[in-house]
Amino acid sequence: MTTLLEISVIPVGTESASYKEYITDAVNLIKDKGLTYHIGPSSTVIEGEIDQVMEVAKEIHKHSLKQNANRVVTNLRIEERSDKDMSISHQMRAVKEASQ
Amino acid sequence: MTTLLEISVIPVGTESASYKEYITDAVNLIKDKGLTYHIGPSSTVIEGEIDQVMEVAKEIHKHSLKQNANRVVTNLRIEERSDKDMSISHQMRAVKEASQ
Amino acid sequence: MTTLLEISVIPVGTESASYKEYITDAVNLIKDKGLTYHIGPSSTVIEGEIDQVMEVAKEIHKHSLKQNANRVVTNLRIEERSDKDMSISHQMRAVKEASQ
Amino acid sequence: MTTLLEISVIPVGTESASYKEYITDAVNLIKDKGLTYHIGPSSTVIEGEIDQVMEVAKEIHKHSLKQNANRVVTNLRIEERSDKDMSISHQMRAVKEASQ
Repeated sequence: MTTLLEISVIPVGTESASYKEYITDAVNLIKDKGLTYHIGPSSTVIEGEIDQVMEVAKEIHKHSLKQNANRVVTNLRIEERSDKDMSISHQMRAVKEASQ
Repeated sequence: MTTLLEISVIPVGTESASYKEYITDAVNLIKDKGLTYHIGPSSTVIEGEIDQVMEVAKEIHKHSLKQNANRVVTNLRIEERSDKDMSISHQMRAVKEASQ
Repeated sequence: MTTLLEISVIPVGTESASYKEYITDAVNLIKDKGLTYHIGPSSTVIEGEIDQVMEVAKEIHKHSLKQNANRVVTNLRIEERSDKDMSISHQMRAVKEASQ
Repeated sequence: MTTLLEISVIPVGTESASYKEYITDAVNLIKDKGLTYHIGPSSTVIEGEIDQVMEVAKEIHKHSLKQNANRVVTNLRIEERSDKDMSISHQMRAVKEASQ
């Protein structure tokens, strides 16, 4: 089944309050895999099979630790249903329509 | 300073795997406050002063517990800078531009 | 009803990969309130009424932003039941006993 | 390097507000791997190499979805340092000593 994985990566000890390049690298890693994604203000959501999304999440975490931060905190939220596929477009459309 | 608060609410023990109405109620509570928000596939981000966003998050949590769930798990991620305002539009534009 | 609030605070841009003093300050703020708490390896859990735990979480977030970080990410996980009190001791004892 | 992974699993639509058996199953899966862990009131922390902890987290998520819930939300928080190992005992001892 298609799963949604929400990811945010926070570098610690980088002397800069900005970490846009960490998020940009993450988005480019997701793009390279050809996966569907949604860039949000605080995190990015990836759509795919559980093994796909966990693999790219691990790659993003490992890549982040090779940049200029000695410590990285990666938050993941994995949401999956056994009775149907989850999709970024469906989730966003359903809530927008219902809250109009 | 303007803060970003990402919120997701999960009802437990509701007999249904769908909880769209919980998210819709949350979005309507945010709308009633006139706050800027972004509906994502896995969570909703609210923009405002720390006291504003924490107050509406608490209202959403309390409201959710009055629906048909005996248990609710509310996840919040609060992101604030002391050197400048954080905004939904800036965060999303910055990453989209950088990852083109 | 008694609620459990799990909190972790991450300073961004502080030149050090360690942020023990942020966690220590948080624990001391919780102690000052006389609330029951549990120090875990990745986060601290506070037990109390929803208004109490949200107030101390906000104080911890605000305090952290006054230290040497220009940016702070505070993650909260609030868990509440409408049918009974939640307690740190019960939650930990129940799982330990069941997984022996 | 040794990593800390904090995991919590929430089943949705199970007709019961309790999900102790999900947490118990998770702890037993971790035990079977011989990994060091800490049971907290809201989540469980696992200590190990990044590939080890991500693999057991995926197993826990997949196992949970085979129980009586049609939907599962799994939250992970991965914390790793490139300059030294992270350990459950060190993290807890450091904060406890500092906040006495």
